[in-house]
Amino acid sequence: MSTPIYNRVALIGLGLIAGSMAWAMKRGGVAGEIVGYARSEETRDTVRKLGFCDRVEDSAAAACEGADLVVLAVPVGAMGGVAQEIAPVLADGCTVTDVGSVKRDVIDHVAPHLPDNVHFVPAHPLAGTEHSGPNAGFAELFDNKWTIIVPVPGADRDAVARLTSFWQALGANTDEMDPEHHDLVLAVTSHTPHLIAYTMVGVADDLGRVTDSEVIKYSAAGFRDFTRIAASDPTMWRDVFLTNKDATLEILGRFTEELFALQRAIRTGDGDHLFDYFTRTRAIRRGIIEAGQDTDAPDFGRAQKK
Amino acid sequence: MSTPIYNRVALIGLGLIAGSMAWAMKRGGVAGEIVGYARSEETRDTVRKLGFCDRVEDSAAAACEGADLVVLAVPVGAMGGVAQEIAPVLADGCTVTDVGSVKRDVIDHVAPHLPDNVHFVPAHPLAGTEHSGPNAGFAELFDNKWTIIVPVPGADRDAVARLTSFWQALGANTDEMDPEHHDLVLAVTSHTPHLIAYTMVGVADDLGRVTDSEVIKYSAAGFRDFTRIAASDPTMWRDVFLTNKDATLEILGRFTEELFALQRAIRTGDGDHLFDYFTRTRAIRRGIIEAGQDTDAPDFGRAQKK
Repeated sequence: MSTPIYNRVALIGLGLIAGSMAWAMKRGGVAGEIVGYARSEETRDTVRKLGFCDRVEDSAAAACEGADLVVLAVPVGAMGGVAQEIAPVLADGCTVTDVGSVKRDVIDHVAPHLPDNVHFVPAHPLAGTEHSGPNAGFAELFDNKWTIIVPVPGADRDAVARLTSFWQALGANTDEMDPEHHDLVLAVTSHTPHLIAYTMVGVADDLGRVTDSEVIKYSAAGFRDFTRIAASDPTMWRDVFLTNKDATLEILGRFTEELFALQRAIRTGDGDHLFDYFTRTRAIRRGIIEAGQDTDAPDFGRAQKK
Repeated sequence: MSTPIYNRVALIGLGLIAGSMAWAMKRGGVAGEIVGYARSEETRDTVRKLGFCDRVEDSAAAACEGADLVVLAVPVGAMGGVAQEIAPVLADGCTVTDVGSVKRDVIDHVAPHLPDNVHFVPAHPLAGTEHSGPNAGFAELFDNKWTIIVPVPGADRDAVARLTSFWQALGANTDEMDPEHHDLVLAVTSHTPHLIAYTMVGVADDLGRVTDSEVIKYSAAGFRDFTRIAASDPTMWRDVFLTNKDATLEILGRFTEELFALQRAIRTGDGDHLFDYFTRTRAIRRGIIEAGQDTDAPDFGRAQKK
């Protein structure tokens, strides 16, 4: 067992991300003690049975007492309220972090509540699955994925370095970014793709002449990939779009502009435009595979090659 | 070894689909002999080494001589030219089929060339991966996937029944549909999703302020799923959009309408609209998993749960 990086970690919110963090902390001996809290009593009872927390408390404040790391792992829209609730009990010198998918909004709503004697170090692990809730967590979720640390101006560098070591001990690679750039990068690599996937699945569901049963039976021709993303947690994603409004709307604007250009090429029969566009997009896939961020196995390995 | 369904099968075009058909035919003893032809000499040489054809000929006509099943497995836009080329040598009573992703256009361009003494039975296996070419084929590609048979008016029912048995022997489930409905269903479940994925990847590639390196590193948050689809064969997809123009443009119109409604909800902060939409789309995912058309493993099984 290596020396713990934090003596007591408090997880506020006990879904996929917090659960996976706890399992990864246990795997690596990263925390002396893991204390948890979730708003729903059902979730708290489930976590008591699953055992990924050493202790589950019935209030956020009770969970945070004496913690040297507090992790806010609730939907982005709920971060500010939780920060306000726990602020009075935070230990002198403790670090507060979060795992929200949007950073500017979280900083604006959390930082004002925190006392001067605690370190606020926002972060965002770029990892997840389409499953949610405490049962969905697993220790390997962050392995070789990226966690982006978003220090606020004047951040304590020791606190930032310690949180960085913590995420690396959970298996992640780490980078630093400012909140605006983070929110734009994520609008491209995550938020807009999710909105588009949700839209496509909604269109298919709506289309009277093609029944849901047909959509489901014939989904292997491409559509099913979109349904995975569109099965993600609705509350989390509602909050993402409401709080990363500007960057998402900007990327959506770029997206519709390109889509209209391709639509025009289809309408006018401009095969060269289509062919060139479809050729260019192959390079990014190769880059992702070379960077170890996806499998090269056909169909994500769903089909087993002989 | 069961009795072959066809004595000699000619595969015209030797990419992912033809290669997978050949391996599946060998697995099931479905064909007495498999003869192949591809336009590229390099592909023909590769297939001679891979061995999934018993014989590879240097012209489409030579490959079709004496075959009782001819499979057109070339891009949709090339189907008509191939049909014209092979028509003179087709054996009396043989069946000609295809594997094109669009059916109305293929029928319009192939049927006029075929003599009256052969049976034309269009079909479309809804299976594939992002890999293309003769090396990409594998026997299990069609297992539990759907192949849609699209008989032309006045089709010989015995020929249709025999081709249906053939596809079932390759592992597929089968359904019949008319060409217009097929093209609409595929516009929803395959063609529009592909166009959208290509568009999203193109937008990310274009965006100057987010480097390609960032898009690649941080792709695990959703974007990477789109890049798999957008790595599909550009020639094949160019032809799909040019030949299924009307249905694709119609579904694209529906898509942008819905996208604009969601965009408006983001702009006006209408969280209820977003939450309701994101909740509704979960049901289709559940249907797809229950129908055995995708895995329930998180992230398509890419992340191994402990």
